[in-house]
Amino acid sequence: MPRLDETAAGVYIIAVTPFTDTGAVDLASTETMVEFYLARGATGLTVLGMMGEAPKLSGAEAIAFTRQIVRRVAGRVPVVVGASSPGFAAMGELSRAAMDAGAAGVMVAPPGTLRTDDSIAYFRNVADTLGDIPFVLQDFPQASGVQIAPAVIRRIVDALPSCVMLKHEDWPGLNKITWLRDAEGMRRISILTGNGGIFLPEELRRGADGAMTGFAFPEMMQGVVDAHFAGDPQRASDIFDAYLPLARYEQQPGPGLAVRKYILARRGAIASDAQRTPRSALNQAEIAEVEFLLARQSDRLAAIGAAPRD
Amino acid sequence: MPRLDETAAGVYIIAVTPFTDTGAVDLASTETMVEFYLARGATGLTVLGMMGEAPKLSGAEAIAFTRQIVRRVAGRVPVVVGASSPGFAAMGELSRAAMDAGAAGVMVAPPGTLRTDDSIAYFRNVADTLGDIPFVLQDFPQASGVQIAPAVIRRIVDALPSCVMLKHEDWPGLNKITWLRDAEGMRRISILTGNGGIFLPEELRRGADGAMTGFAFPEMMQGVVDAHFAGDPQRASDIFDAYLPLARYEQQPGPGLAVRKYILARRGAIASDAQRTPRSALNQAEIAEVEFLLARQSDRLAAIGAAPRD
Amino acid sequence: MPRLDETAAGVYIIAVTPFTDTGAVDLASTETMVEFYLARGATGLTVLGMMGEAPKLSGAEAIAFTRQIVRRVAGRVPVVVGASSPGFAAMGELSRAAMDAGAAGVMVAPPGTLRTDDSIAYFRNVADTLGDIPFVLQDFPQASGVQIAPAVIRRIVDALPSCVMLKHEDWPGLNKITWLRDAEGMRRISILTGNGGIFLPEELRRGADGAMTGFAFPEMMQGVVDAHFAGDPQRASDIFDAYLPLARYEQQPGPGLAVRKYILARRGAIASDAQRTPRSALNQAEIAEVEFLLARQSDRLAAIGAAPRD
Amino acid sequence: MPRLDETAAGVYIIAVTPFTDTGAVDLASTETMVEFYLARGATGLTVLGMMGEAPKLSGAEAIAFTRQIVRRVAGRVPVVVGASSPGFAAMGELSRAAMDAGAAGVMVAPPGTLRTDDSIAYFRNVADTLGDIPFVLQDFPQASGVQIAPAVIRRIVDALPSCVMLKHEDWPGLNKITWLRDAEGMRRISILTGNGGIFLPEELRRGADGAMTGFAFPEMMQGVVDAHFAGDPQRASDIFDAYLPLARYEQQPGPGLAVRKYILARRGAIASDAQRTPRSALNQAEIAEVEFLLARQSDRLAAIGAAPRD
Repeated sequence: MPRLDETAAGVYIIAVTPFTDTGAVDLASTETMVEFYLARGATGLTVLGMMGEAPKLSGAEAIAFTRQIVRRVAGRVPVVVGASSPGFAAMGELSRAAMDAGAAGVMVAPPGTLRTDDSIAYFRNVADTLGDIPFVLQDFPQASGVQIAPAVIRRIVDALPSCVMLKHEDWPGLNKITWLRDAEGMRRISILTGNGGIFLPEELRRGADGAMTGFAFPEMMQGVVDAHFAGDPQRASDIFDAYLPLARYEQQPGPGLAVRKYILARRGAIASDAQRTPRSALNQAEIAEVEFLLARQSDRLAAIGAAPRD
Repeated sequence: MPRLDETAAGVYIIAVTPFTDTGAVDLASTETMVEFYLARGATGLTVLGMMGEAPKLSGAEAIAFTRQIVRRVAGRVPVVVGASSPGFAAMGELSRAAMDAGAAGVMVAPPGTLRTDDSIAYFRNVADTLGDIPFVLQDFPQASGVQIAPAVIRRIVDALPSCVMLKHEDWPGLNKITWLRDAEGMRRISILTGNGGIFLPEELRRGADGAMTGFAFPEMMQGVVDAHFAGDPQRASDIFDAYLPLARYEQQPGPGLAVRKYILARRGAIASDAQRTPRSALNQAEIAEVEFLLARQSDRLAAIGAAPRD
Repeated sequence: MPRLDETAAGVYIIAVTPFTDTGAVDLASTETMVEFYLARGATGLTVLGMMGEAPKLSGAEAIAFTRQIVRRVAGRVPVVVGASSPGFAAMGELSRAAMDAGAAGVMVAPPGTLRTDDSIAYFRNVADTLGDIPFVLQDFPQASGVQIAPAVIRRIVDALPSCVMLKHEDWPGLNKITWLRDAEGMRRISILTGNGGIFLPEELRRGADGAMTGFAFPEMMQGVVDAHFAGDPQRASDIFDAYLPLARYEQQPGPGLAVRKYILARRGAIASDAQRTPRSALNQAEIAEVEFLLARQSDRLAAIGAAPRD
Repeated sequence: MPRLDETAAGVYIIAVTPFTDTGAVDLASTETMVEFYLARGATGLTVLGMMGEAPKLSGAEAIAFTRQIVRRVAGRVPVVVGASSPGFAAMGELSRAAMDAGAAGVMVAPPGTLRTDDSIAYFRNVADTLGDIPFVLQDFPQASGVQIAPAVIRRIVDALPSCVMLKHEDWPGLNKITWLRDAEGMRRISILTGNGGIFLPEELRRGADGAMTGFAFPEMMQGVVDAHFAGDPQRASDIFDAYLPLARYEQQPGPGLAVRKYILARRGAIASDAQRTPRSALNQAEIAEVEFLLARQSDRLAAIGAAPRD
């Protein structure tokens, strides 16, 4: 199996975890979802992330879900597994099981209780726990409450060879990307960006290698990334702008996952938009808002000749 | 002088505070800025808000600035003055001085140390301090760290007749607007929305009366509000979508004010984009990003027949 | 097996989890530790709490440790198992396994991401997950970041019959106890208090039923509780004051657990003060401070005729 | 007038601000309070700190209060003035007025919105604002939410010669003192400790120069500091332990100031325990608790031959 390394680029989709209306992991939807993502430009998949409802799965379910994903992907793209955990024992267990199942690497966010200056010690413990498993440092202050300065990220990267990627979702964070890319003598890592993709054009121009996020239209990230690397920033922004009203709406912290699953179900990627408890379903006003945005988005995409694959 | 009441609607612009390059309040720019805002659809002005660098002014400067604004506005629109303060003595002093100068009301955000359940007691103290001065409750959890549940807002409104408006910038907060508008028997208040306007079309459809925010193109808020109340949601969204890429960029917490002042200076509203310490000026990469977005925005506005007044 | 109910009182010790110097759960020390706690007045044991390094155990280890504890206790006192978890699936799994193993109930703290007003919904989900398993609501704002107002606790208790106890460690929280004990018509629950016991005399006088905390001298809690219920507040305070300098030192957030394990090892309750990563061992200055306090404590206890069982 | 420098030591009392029952600054009590503090061992006074209700005073009141304090002190000890402010303009105004009035220096805590890594830039701005006014860096993460690592404090001290003292109230923070005292080549600063004095013996042994806190029995801090510097740690702890039950009670975040003012009024230092809004008065249960602790404290002090001057 290929292992994640610093050359990772493109669009790593943060996959949802499909559930049936009775709350079981939806095995059939897991299969269709993988095909949906791969057909729309995913160059990698990330499962059991924050938007993958990871904490709602039991340990056994998490492993089984990872196995099914890896089996279906069948080596077409690398699979990254979220392994953040309040303790290193559980982190190590899940990570080893994920790698045994064929994952390419794992992703770890620091716990919210971390004092800033302990970040280096924390990730040293992560690296010790993971051994030679390559890992992604998830830097998401809005969710974790932990601020990691660019110079601290650099020290982590310099000290820990198994840290091969930064999932960048500090906000605002454009200058952080620039700082890392300009840092003289710093070992290269892959930088993929999150935040629902709503700063993707600027992030790419600052030096990001692509996106790792789960917006329900992977075509947006694929289109923006492709146009960017083809040297056509206007085209990248044409595509981005067409999707932005919906991407903005989906990125709302509370109902965001409900929006995402609603659209994925509507597009046939998964059978149901069900979430496990604690859940948030769309109310009528929200559904109307999403439908309004979807209709306008279709028109706009048609106008620029970039209709999604549906 | 007119006093702020629950009928307030339209576009209340959160004014910046113009400084000269040597750090003095820029009196000439204060005059041109007022005309700039009024010519682009402002139905009210709010000064000394968070984005108005209020804490960087001495007490005497804050009063003098308020006086100049009110004098220039000359009754054309109401002026609201930010009066948030760690203590009630200073809040009362500034508020009375502002009303003496001709302001229509004041705006108060809770201190970050407030426990949620103390919100009602806090605003009761605010109302006691202000006497009969009408005030705006600023609900901005991302900045203040204080969560105020809809039911608590209702209790504040029911208990305190001088609370006439909610500046709504909870995020996500669409359902909060709906809750307040559907609350049976609740006294009507004006609801204007903040957050740089990036949810304005949805907020209006949920029952907001307009916007209170400072995006450097007031034409966006004016156009969206006008089209909404004219019953044309598609037109409202056409205008909104054309400005959204830049509005999104300007709303970044850190460099946001620098972006706003850069554009206002570029448009001639103020002479300089200078901030007082602590300041954040745009670097070259950021300027290039803003210029790229401005050029695309002009094209898009031309395409929909909605060029800004420049 | 007896089930936890609202009559629980006395001293529930928050047990540490003993590790060997190589990081394995120390099975022999688990046995001696149980006897140590029971011989010094424990009327209940709580395992896998925050100070029990619960997140550092794998799921299988947590279950095995619970089983061993329950087996050794052999019905002499009830055993409560910490079941806080970022997800309900894991919470349910661990809770059912704990009850199958013979636990009397479980303890749940809310996740730090909870907005205050969602507390009721959260614990409703907890109760749904747990079915008829009795649970302790852990109210520890300093650790969880979640403020739960007394009126909200009351609503939780009124709505959820399986909530039988409050572990009170809001700080300052004396008036919260009074509020709950004075709340007319509220169903009775047990209230045991935490925070290392450093407000225990006052908490008992306000209406608490005892302590649930892990100070390395259970004799302190036993002595204070016994003297209080015997109607001798001066004796309760004599005992409390003798232990207070050390209890204060042990309650420091960072090194606190290291202090506790150091003393427990020194007293023979466990073989080693080892912690699993992330760990904090005492440095030489800290050891000197603890030894200085221990020596003075012995003298003071001798002076009041209350030497600990060592 | 003497200026604060790195030799400052002993007991700097954080003074309360006395109010009359109608809410005016109590001029007569200001005079008696100064004499009360000086007669009980104060080697310095700090006014307008967090526990001095500083934000509740208008700017003019703050200056007038400072002037009165300095006049009454009449050069017997240095006076430090709290100058923390959300903006540098107000900080500069108050600081210059305080120095004009005869203060020895000012104290500044960082604003809660500060990201850790911006601490150095922030205090550089402070130093620029203050010019040659000596200042105290207040490091109080529990109140400010800002963590400042020891290495960052060192960099601030090394960069800013006008930073002459650390008010240390990180908690737990003993190792921070040791780190700073062991830092090779670091310029010496005075370190005085806060937190109500409840770690004072240990802090002194780690290298602190004394206390800067406002416990209502300055005799405690004086006694502990004197015994420590006389080389008698047992005597220092005898005194400390006698006061600890009450010091612990007074240090509760919410009612703490009400406890302190209640005792100061009871001891005749001030005429009334009134606070300005938002205020918290002691209820009957709290008064009973304080009286219980005071009676026991008197007995204990008599037993060790260390009765307070009353």
